[in-house]
Amino acid sequence: MSDTYDKFINLVCEIGQLDSIAQLLDWDSETYMPGNGLHVRADQLALTAAMAHERRSSSRLGDLLSQLEQSNLDPVQAANVREIRRLHDRAVKVPAELVRRIAHAMTLAKDAWGKAREASSFPTFAPHLEELLTLKRQVADLIGYRTERYDALMDDFEPGITTAEVAAIFASLRGPLAAFVRQLTESKRQPDTSILHRHFPREAQERFSRRMAEAIGFNFNAGRIDVSKHPFCTGMGPGDVRLTTRYYEDFFNASVFGVLHEAGHGLYEQGLDPKHVFTPAGQSVSLGVHESQSRMWENLVGRSRPFWEAFYPECQKAFPQALGSVSLDAFYGAINRVGPSLIRVEADEVTYNLHIIVRFELERAMIDGKLAVKEVPEAWNAKMRELLGVTPPNDREGCLQDIHWSMGTFGYFPTYALGNLYAAQFFEAAHRAIPDLTDRIRRGELSPLREWLRTNIHVLGSRYRAGDLVQRVTGNPLSTEPFMRYIHGKFAPIYGL
Amino acid sequence: MSDTYDKFINLVCEIGQLDSIAQLLDWDSETYMPGNGLHVRADQLALTAAMAHERRSSSRLGDLLSQLEQSNLDPVQAANVREIRRLHDRAVKVPAELVRRIAHAMTLAKDAWGKAREASSFPTFAPHLEELLTLKRQVADLIGYRTERYDALMDDFEPGITTAEVAAIFASLRGPLAAFVRQLTESKRQPDTSILHRHFPREAQERFSRRMAEAIGFNFNAGRIDVSKHPFCTGMGPGDVRLTTRYYEDFFNASVFGVLHEAGHGLYEQGLDPKHVFTPAGQSVSLGVHESQSRMWENLVGRSRPFWEAFYPECQKAFPQALGSVSLDAFYGAINRVGPSLIRVEADEVTYNLHIIVRFELERAMIDGKLAVKEVPEAWNAKMRELLGVTPPNDREGCLQDIHWSMGTFGYFPTYALGNLYAAQFFEAAHRAIPDLTDRIRRGELSPLREWLRTNIHVLGSRYRAGDLVQRVTGNPLSTEPFMRYIHGKFAPIYGL
Repeated sequence: MSDTYDKFINLVCEIGQLDSIAQLLDWDSETYMPGNGLHVRADQLALTAAMAHERRSSSRLGDLLSQLEQSNLDPVQAANVREIRRLHDRAVKVPAELVRRIAHAMTLAKDAWGKAREASSFPTFAPHLEELLTLKRQVADLIGYRTERYDALMDDFEPGITTAEVAAIFASLRGPLAAFVRQLTESKRQPDTSILHRHFPREAQERFSRRMAEAIGFNFNAGRIDVSKHPFCTGMGPGDVRLTTRYYEDFFNASVFGVLHEAGHGLYEQGLDPKHVFTPAGQSVSLGVHESQSRMWENLVGRSRPFWEAFYPECQKAFPQALGSVSLDAFYGAINRVGPSLIRVEADEVTYNLHIIVRFELERAMIDGKLAVKEVPEAWNAKMRELLGVTPPNDREGCLQDIHWSMGTFGYFPTYALGNLYAAQFFEAAHRAIPDLTDRIRRGELSPLREWLRTNIHVLGSRYRAGDLVQRVTGNPLSTEPFMRYIHGKFAPIYGL
Repeated sequence: MSDTYDKFINLVCEIGQLDSIAQLLDWDSETYMPGNGLHVRADQLALTAAMAHERRSSSRLGDLLSQLEQSNLDPVQAANVREIRRLHDRAVKVPAELVRRIAHAMTLAKDAWGKAREASSFPTFAPHLEELLTLKRQVADLIGYRTERYDALMDDFEPGITTAEVAAIFASLRGPLAAFVRQLTESKRQPDTSILHRHFPREAQERFSRRMAEAIGFNFNAGRIDVSKHPFCTGMGPGDVRLTTRYYEDFFNASVFGVLHEAGHGLYEQGLDPKHVFTPAGQSVSLGVHESQSRMWENLVGRSRPFWEAFYPECQKAFPQALGSVSLDAFYGAINRVGPSLIRVEADEVTYNLHIIVRFELERAMIDGKLAVKEVPEAWNAKMRELLGVTPPNDREGCLQDIHWSMGTFGYFPTYALGNLYAAQFFEAAHRAIPDLTDRIRRGELSPLREWLRTNIHVLGSRYRAGDLVQRVTGNPLSTEPFMRYIHGKFAPIYGL
């Protein structure tokens, strides 16, 4: 048995190593690769993906899994077998020819999406979206699902969760959240955000962002920050975690909150158990839980008053021209301005989930065949009006704004909102476990929270599925209540409600 | 047949892609990888090396080679089959267990070498060197050779050349070269190098080095310059070529001539034929020819008077404090100071080959069993006295200075000297082909030389073995005469001989 498990782990580690190589290739493409390196890079990525797929779908792996499923396994072993079974089955069930067709359709769709977005014209993108939906429905049918096809697609990003669960959570969120946004919007007190658009010299931003990442405990012996067009975090194991950001000299938020966000992801990656590197027990459990870590540090900590009571003096010193004479209250208000907007990636933490609900409801209906592709722009605009009270003036600022659908990525959007909900629920549990947490944050002591997250979430890797983890860590199943309590408790005072 | 050749090329490209992935992993280790990333990186590199070796030694590749060797092939196909046959045979003949033992011995030897060098004590390194020599002799015996074991080892770096040829070339070089060095050393006129140790601000060095790389034609859309402890150049195909350098604020040469050297390598890589990427026809032919390109741009062009007639005004503008009042003649003298020294990597272009001859003669004798390991320090010092007239005061500045032997790398050193000789011979041919070449350089026009190198050397990849290439490009076999003519012609005037 131990021999079988060792063989299994060797093969799983090889897959993990290939994936980690692909991560470096991707990271390099986004940061340092010269433009003409694209063709070779595409070949390198195709090769690593093919070699990982070959191993993941191999009958050798299938045989080892079958043997281990008949054996007595400790909890870590059982988790590794469970998660690799899921990946093996997905790899086996979807034939290489279909994978190839999707990759091909995606390449064309991404190009068409770029052009359609540029021209703000949905119809030229529509046939590509139709094609990808057809192919993704085939994938769902091959993989299998309990209730609806969307289950099978979401399982790729948030293993174990069902569409019905997500729909129920979003249904309980959408009304109260939209109502609260209206209240905030109609308030007479509105923070002034103009101070965030003063001049913030790039070098000062680099120093201060790095300082913020250090403050929350990101380890630069095991990571780094570079510049890329779209910020991201990638971990090749807990010893090598890379964040990227971007710097706008006329906008404070992008680098500082961007780095807090990515460093939140980074702390999760650095907190994984190095003994289990390359195996599920040493890998993050789901995109939703990953996002909960980034959103917690970016928003629940990083946009809180106690946090800036500790760090605002340093921030003023870093940007004396822009913030030297701005009060903490004015700064705190500005970084917490709430308002309905058209673009998801620019949304504040209150309206953000509404943007996600729009996308979830539309893509679920599309996969299900209840919403025809040609009706998407109108349906998008109607939902934006309903939930946020705004109407996109064109498709570029409407249903063409996100790249996800052009990549055939359906079932991914919900994880952003789940992350916000998990974050609030974990944060309440952290407060129960560390009664003086607020005071500690106010003194700039962030290690108690970080260590609590490390022990209760990070180091467990994929040992528990996300739903079980939430239950275990917080004593309750996933709920919208902590999130609603959090935003009411925070924003009502800011807006004088 | 075409089908067989296609299968062969697909497999060869896979090997090439794996090698190119390993190159990125190595580049990243030396430039951006955080310290704690080492373990994962070692696993990634071991996996790519194993996968490349598996393919290179596969019977599938062997069968395809045998079939193709019976077929009619065009010259490019024939070159690919010839070079892959060489690599396949080497991979097949050396069992994985021996490769593993060498890697293990090397790890221990590198560590022991570092400590021995630190303590300047050869005896603690001696048993490791002995072990590596034993293992490398086994490798040579397994691979086979014409006359002596050293042939088989050198073949890894300079395919096709024999020890006897190299020995004959060095024999004709050592006496006249040592005599010329004595003449230069004894001359009353000696350039003043103190101006090179003034203050050269780092940012100005970065800008100027980059400018020099651009001036000789290095394409930054297909490459970049980063910082590493030891400078190197790595090419993942002609579209992605990466140089590294280092900056010392109290020394002019390291970055500027370092970048000219590495950009010389880089021009070779960028000039390879992209249609043959990942195959020998699109890869450099030998380390010696590679070094000829770097040394040509660093020394024959980059340390020439015509070159600085074009660029010295710009250089003075870049470093106004340090060089503003230094004449071109003083600068030209300083960058061409010749003198016997103890350390190879700091040697000038005249004495450099003597350092190589010392190493070649010693390692050839060691492999052959004619020189016992324990006698190495004394033999080293004796040869240094004979050829350069200096005696190392200790082993750190003597036989422990280079890392190569601790890596089991025997047969590599000669390629440095071959590079200098090839460079001079190619440069004479370029002058014959471009009669006004000196004037063009004096006007800062470096594209005629670069394009000539591209057409006559770079784009041919490994189509011809190095010896055939030299014959083809210069009309003569490799000879020491062009090099001796070059150094006499250049240094006699500088030293007033």
